[in-house]
Amino acid sequence: MSTTSRSTLSPTELQHLDAYWRAANYLSVGQIYLLANPLLREPLTLAHVKPRLLGHWGTTPGLNFIYAHLNRLIREHDLSVLYVAGPGHGAPGVVANTYLEGSYSELYPDIGPGEDGLRKLFRQFSFPGGIPSHAAPQTPGSIHEGGELGFSLTHAYGAALDHPELLVACVIGDGEAETAPLAASWHSNKFLNPRTDGAVLPILHLNGYKIANPTVLARLEHAELDALLRGYGHTPYYVEGDDPALMHQQMARTLEQVYADIAAIQRRARVEGVQERPAWPMIVLRSPKGWTGPKVVDGLPVEGTWRAHQVPLAGLSDHPEHLHQLEDWLLSYRPEELFDEAGVLRPELAAQAPSGERRMGMNPVANGGLLRRDLDLPDWRGYAVAVLEPGSVEAEATRVLGTFLRDVMKRNMTTFRLFGPDETASNRLDAVYAASGKTWQEPQLPTDQHLSPDGRVMEVLSEHLCEGWLEGYTLTGRHGLFSCYEAFIHVVDSMVGQHSKWLETSREIAWRSPVPSLNILLTSHVWRQDHNGSSHQDPGFIDLMMNKAPAVVRVYLPPDANTLLCVTDHCLRSRDYVNVIVAGKQPERQWLSEADAAKHCADGLGIWAWASTDRGETPDVVMACAGDVPTLETLAAVSLLRSAFPGLKIRVVNVVDLMTLQPQSEHPHGLSDAAFDEIFTTDVPIIFAYHGYPWLIHRLTYRRAGHQNLHVHGYTGQGTTTTPFDMTVLNELDRFHLALDVIRRVPHLQDVNSDAKQQLLNKLDEHHAYVRATGDDLPDVKNWRWGDG
Amino acid sequence: MSTTSRSTLSPTELQHLDAYWRAANYLSVGQIYLLANPLLREPLTLAHVKPRLLGHWGTTPGLNFIYAHLNRLIREHDLSVLYVAGPGHGAPGVVANTYLEGSYSELYPDIGPGEDGLRKLFRQFSFPGGIPSHAAPQTPGSIHEGGELGFSLTHAYGAALDHPELLVACVIGDGEAETAPLAASWHSNKFLNPRTDGAVLPILHLNGYKIANPTVLARLEHAELDALLRGYGHTPYYVEGDDPALMHQQMARTLEQVYADIAAIQRRARVEGVQERPAWPMIVLRSPKGWTGPKVVDGLPVEGTWRAHQVPLAGLSDHPEHLHQLEDWLLSYRPEELFDEAGVLRPELAAQAPSGERRMGMNPVANGGLLRRDLDLPDWRGYAVAVLEPGSVEAEATRVLGTFLRDVMKRNMTTFRLFGPDETASNRLDAVYAASGKTWQEPQLPTDQHLSPDGRVMEVLSEHLCEGWLEGYTLTGRHGLFSCYEAFIHVVDSMVGQHSKWLETSREIAWRSPVPSLNILLTSHVWRQDHNGSSHQDPGFIDLMMNKAPAVVRVYLPPDANTLLCVTDHCLRSRDYVNVIVAGKQPERQWLSEADAAKHCADGLGIWAWASTDRGETPDVVMACAGDVPTLETLAAVSLLRSAFPGLKIRVVNVVDLMTLQPQSEHPHGLSDAAFDEIFTTDVPIIFAYHGYPWLIHRLTYRRAGHQNLHVHGYTGQGTTTTPFDMTVLNELDRFHLALDVIRRVPHLQDVNSDAKQQLLNKLDEHHAYVRATGDDLPDVKNWRWGDG
Repeated sequence: MSTTSRSTLSPTELQHLDAYWRAANYLSVGQIYLLANPLLREPLTLAHVKPRLLGHWGTTPGLNFIYAHLNRLIREHDLSVLYVAGPGHGAPGVVANTYLEGSYSELYPDIGPGEDGLRKLFRQFSFPGGIPSHAAPQTPGSIHEGGELGFSLTHAYGAALDHPELLVACVIGDGEAETAPLAASWHSNKFLNPRTDGAVLPILHLNGYKIANPTVLARLEHAELDALLRGYGHTPYYVEGDDPALMHQQMARTLEQVYADIAAIQRRARVEGVQERPAWPMIVLRSPKGWTGPKVVDGLPVEGTWRAHQVPLAGLSDHPEHLHQLEDWLLSYRPEELFDEAGVLRPELAAQAPSGERRMGMNPVANGGLLRRDLDLPDWRGYAVAVLEPGSVEAEATRVLGTFLRDVMKRNMTTFRLFGPDETASNRLDAVYAASGKTWQEPQLPTDQHLSPDGRVMEVLSEHLCEGWLEGYTLTGRHGLFSCYEAFIHVVDSMVGQHSKWLETSREIAWRSPVPSLNILLTSHVWRQDHNGSSHQDPGFIDLMMNKAPAVVRVYLPPDANTLLCVTDHCLRSRDYVNVIVAGKQPERQWLSEADAAKHCADGLGIWAWASTDRGETPDVVMACAGDVPTLETLAAVSLLRSAFPGLKIRVVNVVDLMTLQPQSEHPHGLSDAAFDEIFTTDVPIIFAYHGYPWLIHRLTYRRAGHQNLHVHGYTGQGTTTTPFDMTVLNELDRFHLALDVIRRVPHLQDVNSDAKQQLLNKLDEHHAYVRATGDDLPDVKNWRWGDG
Repeated sequence: MSTTSRSTLSPTELQHLDAYWRAANYLSVGQIYLLANPLLREPLTLAHVKPRLLGHWGTTPGLNFIYAHLNRLIREHDLSVLYVAGPGHGAPGVVANTYLEGSYSELYPDIGPGEDGLRKLFRQFSFPGGIPSHAAPQTPGSIHEGGELGFSLTHAYGAALDHPELLVACVIGDGEAETAPLAASWHSNKFLNPRTDGAVLPILHLNGYKIANPTVLARLEHAELDALLRGYGHTPYYVEGDDPALMHQQMARTLEQVYADIAAIQRRARVEGVQERPAWPMIVLRSPKGWTGPKVVDGLPVEGTWRAHQVPLAGLSDHPEHLHQLEDWLLSYRPEELFDEAGVLRPELAAQAPSGERRMGMNPVANGGLLRRDLDLPDWRGYAVAVLEPGSVEAEATRVLGTFLRDVMKRNMTTFRLFGPDETASNRLDAVYAASGKTWQEPQLPTDQHLSPDGRVMEVLSEHLCEGWLEGYTLTGRHGLFSCYEAFIHVVDSMVGQHSKWLETSREIAWRSPVPSLNILLTSHVWRQDHNGSSHQDPGFIDLMMNKAPAVVRVYLPPDANTLLCVTDHCLRSRDYVNVIVAGKQPERQWLSEADAAKHCADGLGIWAWASTDRGETPDVVMACAGDVPTLETLAAVSLLRSAFPGLKIRVVNVVDLMTLQPQSEHPHGLSDAAFDEIFTTDVPIIFAYHGYPWLIHRLTYRRAGHQNLHVHGYTGQGTTTTPFDMTVLNELDRFHLALDVIRRVPHLQDVNSDAKQQLLNKLDEHHAYVRATGDDLPDVKNWRWGDG
């Protein structure tokens, strides 16, 4: 759809808009190059230039161009716009613009208007103690760093959900567009409700080159590109060229058109009540890489080529002509027309920016903590399983959680969503459908279930989209939970890592208000992937998270339904964390009443006296466990040992908050050494049954006094297609191996154990033969109950 | 483009094809359900049925339909076809077909033709000690497990590269198509050379539902879907319906058309010499989920709905009518027409399959080790940096490696490729362009560099595509190396994990021949991402790999160019491993001559006597290092300490093969305890400077006698935008902190150290002030040379 050729901008408007853009470009180049002499009031010398040139110019003029035009649109229609800069290294542009509009100085008063402020603005960029080259948490108006590429569009959609008045302008780099997460993100438009959600305006910025190569999308023939974008469900508009005057008219006109389209779509949905998935507009901006920068350097073309990616002019100390060229480049923006004597942006240009919270740098959506309303949470105790005696009832932990989440959703119908890769029902959280269906804007068939255009459960077979939407949703002040098969959370290792970094940095930025935590529920976990086999078995995500900032990361392994409820309640109230909860979905024995669960979760770990036989005395052995299946196997092992060795003093310790194991110096949740030693002792064997890779427990307890007594059983990579109990046997996490280890480690059992030991070994043989004969687990193992002995 | 309505199949052909399909469907259902009575020669009872029903039916009839039709095409045109089953849980179908064609019994003689073989075939499926539900390494003809979804199309393209006679038929599930890796993979067709590569035929299988939800692509209106697929650069053909007779004709006709298109494309490229990127054909197969299965169960629709995803009939012991329905379902395929008295496929049906290596289960491409030709490698010593004295010269390690890789490529122009996400030049491997350009089938502009339709460097801004292509390339017997920014390799954590599992399992399968290793070069590493900031800093991939099978994983940290050459040469010769090499690209001092490098790499770790001051005596301190920057800082610390404490006995140990640190019991590369103790001692402090997260070194050395003396410095997450040396200071890996730690740990220095210690602290203050004033590192740090003191 080509736009018409009439002019939208008056000559004065055009002149001001172009000047504003020049100002942003000037400030961008200044940040990349200058330490001093910010207004070029004296001839440029090497002393004014940074010794290390680290910025990226290529994408910047396009980002500035879009920003300036969005300013005009915002003023014209009084819009709330969030600006998402997808291309990497976008900080020079976004920082320049938020400085020009006054946001920057409001948030960072030290960097005020005027020459001194400009000098500081320039100096701090990519400078030790300064700011990064990406649109990082330090950048006003940003929820998206753009360091690792590919997440801009999912973040944009996450921000737009339940923000009906918001327009998210998402600039997608053509390099970024090659990444897998971005390629999948285009279909996010199938999950946006025009009635209750805001709009996302993708602006695909085709500037032709990545670091060193042409981009795939920029080189498609027009018809193919157009088919692709229409196939993605968009109505594309094209703004193409390199003559600023013509491009300004085209862009202004196109934005007006796009705005009219969006308004019409929303009117149809909101006023006329039409249920449809509209063809949302989008813009393709085709402009030269490094637009307005040096055209030729050392005889080689730069503007419009990959050579414009980073610093078009380098090695200034060895190439005096480059210094001269830099000066000419900066002066080409005519700074004297843009800034007054004091170095302050001239008032007619300052007037081009919106004011107050309409400035994209001050939109509260981008500082989501400002919008955050705590969830209205029902009392989780109301959903608890009645556990009169430990092990007396059975329940599916996630199914119980589903009833709680159902009511969380009901009470927070515009601020809470559940995300999952086609697994909400598989993960047994389907009670939530009583509160809300699954988001679906397409036509429905009679065979569909629980779909709704207004649905608040977001299901798509992409962990990347689930994670990205949730990140965007929480960064803009709302709450959510992402449930995922444990093994496949590795798909978003990198995303979660980047989000952790964002939160870690955000916590140190005074003006950023805390946002709701990112909550990840890992279920269908390693011990219950016997049927899906090796590809579905991997508990390593916890290890990955342990390398992230202790201030941000929390890991919980609730052993049953009530502890899962309590932990989830806690996570939904928390801020600025990444909470990882690991819990099974299968029917399992329940251990703790609601009161016991509350206390246990508050403590993070504790002695289970009801399961112990040490009667408060020094035990012969500590049997510790973390995770639902390890807890079950530990208790079954305790039963076996109680029968075999009635006098044996066993202390059972369960760990629900993994971070309590660490020293207080390493994690805020760490138990004091005194308390730890009291519980685990310093001199008796500790047989620790752990959900994941055993090594992690050693890592966490490394500095504890009793560490040398610790023997950890966990997942050692012995996975295949088999039965649930056989999975534990293969990895020696089962009751028999645990009991055998106790016999091996407790000195006074080593002599008297031969019979008991042989019985356990016999059971293992019996198990092995039975499983391979029947394909099922031994009945007495499957039906084991606490108290059976 | 709709296909015409003429019939392609004669009545007999149609009848045979349909019968063959019914046989495959019968065997699929049998695998999911039956333990015995495989030919239903007696009435079906519960005793014949598996106690746990674990298979997935939904996708299977479609997979079988495609397989049967490909058989016909292969026979008709004598084709070499590789079958990639993208949908999850595809094993029942692929196993059934490879059994019917005879491949299965050839590879697993115990499962022969006839009733007993059928019984075993059925029983082993998803049964303890049996085979997985995915097209795992156990599955003949498979290079793609399909456990984690999303990689089928990248694997298909990787297999097709440099296999000009191969046709890769890649079935893409419509659930899988929602994943990010698959969404990005469509653009792989821009990197396929019709002249020298084979063809990939994507078959998008729209069966409408995932586990519980409709799929995005299945619900698009035809025009939108068609635009999308044309936008991806394909010519789509549609096969749609549910009447088998009509569908067989449609599919046969469409495959003939598709084959004609591919032949025409290849003729144009190969005979007529036309350089173009053609619109490759693809097929959209729209058929009911669970096609031919139960239509209604318990009054609810099943065929064509999400209820057909797993086992349509469950709970057989509680629902006798389900057992009856199962029997009817199996009998609906009329097994008596398909198998003879002995249970052997009837000859007229057996004749429907191709023979020998034309059978897809026996295509050697799918057992790539059979095709593997060892690389013709030049002697790496010919590329070595001349190092007459340690530290006497400077070089960029990866740039040196680039010259070696250039000649590796020149000598192996059809069996070696280099992969990278737009970073080959950034990672300074650009010497390879002298051997071959970057693959590019689109038109070129004068500003492009090093592009070529015949290029063998694969560059796309997607780690997923690079990794997936390389996996497909090596699994089909060829060699490659993937260079990646260290932080962003986390993007493919999950893929590499799955590939490691594939290799681990493959090693145990007798008929699978070893394939070339997957080689990953991590460069632009954490210590040189000072300019890109926190988002680009993450050395955690090594930790992730340490949880994978020791039989498969290798990690190397060469400290300089010559060791990098030697290690890479070793990796390129290896088989069935995932080799991870971490090496910097910046100019650094060089330490080892080619002879010393060869010995050092062969040993994996060793004492650097030239840097040590212990003269073979018991040292006062061991200073160990792994990684290029840690090595540099360790040697600089040694220099400082030599000056300050001339009598101090320091032993310098460098580790290039990280696995040598582990006990021999845990990794085949592990050093013996005796050798380890000899080198590291058991009783003096060990100050270990490590490239990544410090904890890993503790983990690896945990069982070593000297472990309690070990103090590790590494990356502790202190990242930001700063200078290179400041990165080491922030994480206390720098020379000053290392030297201070030596002073703290060596008993006899603790009393006499006040002056030296104060000097080191002063230098840290001086560094801090200088960096923040100038944005650059202290000249005496930058210019430090070994021997400076």
